[in-house]
Amino acid sequence: MKSPPKPDPPASRRAFLKLGAAAGGILSACQDASGPPVSTGPSRLGKPPSEYGERSPFETSARHMRLSKNPETGSTRTPLQDSYGIITPSSVHFERHHAGVPKINPAEHRLMMHGMVERPLIFTMEELRRLPSVTRVHFIECAGNSRDEWGAKKAPNVQRSHGMASCSEWTGVLLSVLLEEAGVKPDASWVIAEGADVCKMARSVPLEKCTGDVIVAYGQNGEAIRPEQGYPLRLVTPGWEGNINVKWLRRLEVTSQPLMARDETSKYTDLMADGKARQFSFPMEAKSVITFPSGEQKLDSTGFYEISGLAWSGRGTIERVEVSVDGGDNWRDAELQEPRHRAAFTRFRLSWNWTGEETTILSRATDDTGYVQPRMEEIIAVRGSHSDYHNNGIAAWKIQSDGSVTHV
Amino acid sequence: MKSPPKPDPPASRRAFLKLGAAAGGILSACQDASGPPVSTGPSRLGKPPSEYGERSPFETSARHMRLSKNPETGSTRTPLQDSYGIITPSSVHFERHHAGVPKINPAEHRLMMHGMVERPLIFTMEELRRLPSVTRVHFIECAGNSRDEWGAKKAPNVQRSHGMASCSEWTGVLLSVLLEEAGVKPDASWVIAEGADVCKMARSVPLEKCTGDVIVAYGQNGEAIRPEQGYPLRLVTPGWEGNINVKWLRRLEVTSQPLMARDETSKYTDLMADGKARQFSFPMEAKSVITFPSGEQKLDSTGFYEISGLAWSGRGTIERVEVSVDGGDNWRDAELQEPRHRAAFTRFRLSWNWTGEETTILSRATDDTGYVQPRMEEIIAVRGSHSDYHNNGIAAWKIQSDGSVTHV
Repeated sequence: MKSPPKPDPPASRRAFLKLGAAAGGILSACQDASGPPVSTGPSRLGKPPSEYGERSPFETSARHMRLSKNPETGSTRTPLQDSYGIITPSSVHFERHHAGVPKINPAEHRLMMHGMVERPLIFTMEELRRLPSVTRVHFIECAGNSRDEWGAKKAPNVQRSHGMASCSEWTGVLLSVLLEEAGVKPDASWVIAEGADVCKMARSVPLEKCTGDVIVAYGQNGEAIRPEQGYPLRLVTPGWEGNINVKWLRRLEVTSQPLMARDETSKYTDLMADGKARQFSFPMEAKSVITFPSGEQKLDSTGFYEISGLAWSGRGTIERVEVSVDGGDNWRDAELQEPRHRAAFTRFRLSWNWTGEETTILSRATDDTGYVQPRMEEIIAVRGSHSDYHNNGIAAWKIQSDGSVTHV
Repeated sequence: MKSPPKPDPPASRRAFLKLGAAAGGILSACQDASGPPVSTGPSRLGKPPSEYGERSPFETSARHMRLSKNPETGSTRTPLQDSYGIITPSSVHFERHHAGVPKINPAEHRLMMHGMVERPLIFTMEELRRLPSVTRVHFIECAGNSRDEWGAKKAPNVQRSHGMASCSEWTGVLLSVLLEEAGVKPDASWVIAEGADVCKMARSVPLEKCTGDVIVAYGQNGEAIRPEQGYPLRLVTPGWEGNINVKWLRRLEVTSQPLMARDETSKYTDLMADGKARQFSFPMEAKSVITFPSGEQKLDSTGFYEISGLAWSGRGTIERVEVSVDGGDNWRDAELQEPRHRAAFTRFRLSWNWTGEETTILSRATDDTGYVQPRMEEIIAVRGSHSDYHNNGIAAWKIQSDGSVTHV
């Protein structure tokens, strides 16, 4: 299949000009529609239907692997540069495991709820599925997402700089329903959530959050939750750091004290400038990143492009995303994809004519609390430069005059 | 792993009773929380992360195959009985092919737009992806979905009776953008959409629809559209019969006449009582079906259940779903999952205490035009009994006293 010939600018192309083709053009003209270079397509019957479909063999987008010495404690990152809309395909949802992905038979799995409750309870998966359910779209972001952004050396692409964030349609029972069934005792203030992985990863969740929007989830994107995301059961703690969305959930203990687990003391805390560590900083603050054009992508020619990206806030709904195409001097409001969900990815889009000049593009999110995504320097001014987790600073991509894109 | 012991009804279980456990109970009590029968989970490290994840081997839900003599013209149905929320996993989106699933290299694929336009255009996939995009959640339903429901012999389960409907998050360019670029000539009134499959399946779409909400889609559920759904390009024609959502889209011809193609004359038309056929009946009218409990499922015991199902309308947004648990004598409003999208699945839910009596359950949808899903008899009164396509009648499930469920 040959590419169609390059267009001669026709006399009347008012509508065409609207997209900015004057500056290079993205459309090719069919000079002779009676003998068109149309896709002929295949010349024989295709494959028959199938019981469970796979993606096209031409699609190779994959998670970026970051394995430790023990691969079971490794992580992977979502290819945000290839994402569409707001749903992350379950197959490329980011991973961070502390003892690998356990293989759990749902018929044998139990969730125990005990501690400071009137009535300890044990649920089978069948029992949980009989209870009133909710379905909600929420992002999950690792507290360590964008940790490399603290330093001068930037990750080469958006998958490596921001790919420990993903967004799914979660289905399950509100934890508040289970707590109401169990009957929480008056002095209780925390719930310890524990996974069934071999390290029994556990986190402490304030009771107030648990009686709010926390979901004991068994469904993800229309089917059972994936093994890497906690099959058969995950605590989805909307907007809060990934680690507290406990996977392979097996136990909920109502207490009056936090557990002071490893992952809420030595890990996932924020070392401040004065040497003290900030603990229990749960919500992931408003953040955004441009996914196209982004690092290692390339603009083929000058002319019209749609700048596109993702924004999210652990504290609520994204109200506004501004984009600068001149290194931060001027900002324009991007269009936000509707409907916008609370504590979920929001896709933003902005039309742009690239004239071929070198420039830097950035995005900045504002949520419905009025909080504005800060510049890295503003974060460092507050938290010093020894911090590691919870980095929601503005990210910038430099467009070179040859169309190549790098992270700056 | 042993099941926990059956509960003795405790003295104080106000909250517990709220869910109706008085009538059988769905929760098991942990009698001794200090030595609990909690899931111990695996005793060794699990699997390391992976580049592209798969579902759990314990999950076996699959499309139901309905193959013709030539499997390339066959169809498959979505396992709605296993669905959560509103997104259908792409791997189980229903299929109906006329010449199999072609293997198309996106680098070679072209979309031609010609006919009554000022400026014929040819687009590569790269060029389409540069244009302004939208992402919207829409159902697609085959006009032949529920065709067996016309007769007395009912399909045994909801997958076979209603499974030719699925719902995805679609991303692409509005067709209106492409038409504006091409410049539609004054007397044009139709657009012929043609696929690249070997039979070059084609349909005529009124121009008014094309300048409205029709999407030239390349994304599905966050990744590239699946091969069975038209990879790399599909015409998504929101709310209209599945066949007109032309897959493997390669050509759009603006005309003043419909094509009178096979699939809009001998097929996908409605044979009325007087022997005349109704043609171009595009929108799929408001419809709903209970997915749990549904045919071939079984209620394990009496007590609390959440009745759950899906509703959709090709004419707009679902405004109301009523459920009857007594064969249609009384109806209660189900809760609708928010946000509701136009021309998309809407999940509905209703709390129910099953006392163990034989009964019949039904659902009935109303859309924002005020249209109410009809009973089968009402449809037959208008269209006679020789009709085949476009069946949106109310479906009923009979619960036997042993908890088994059959389609009636």
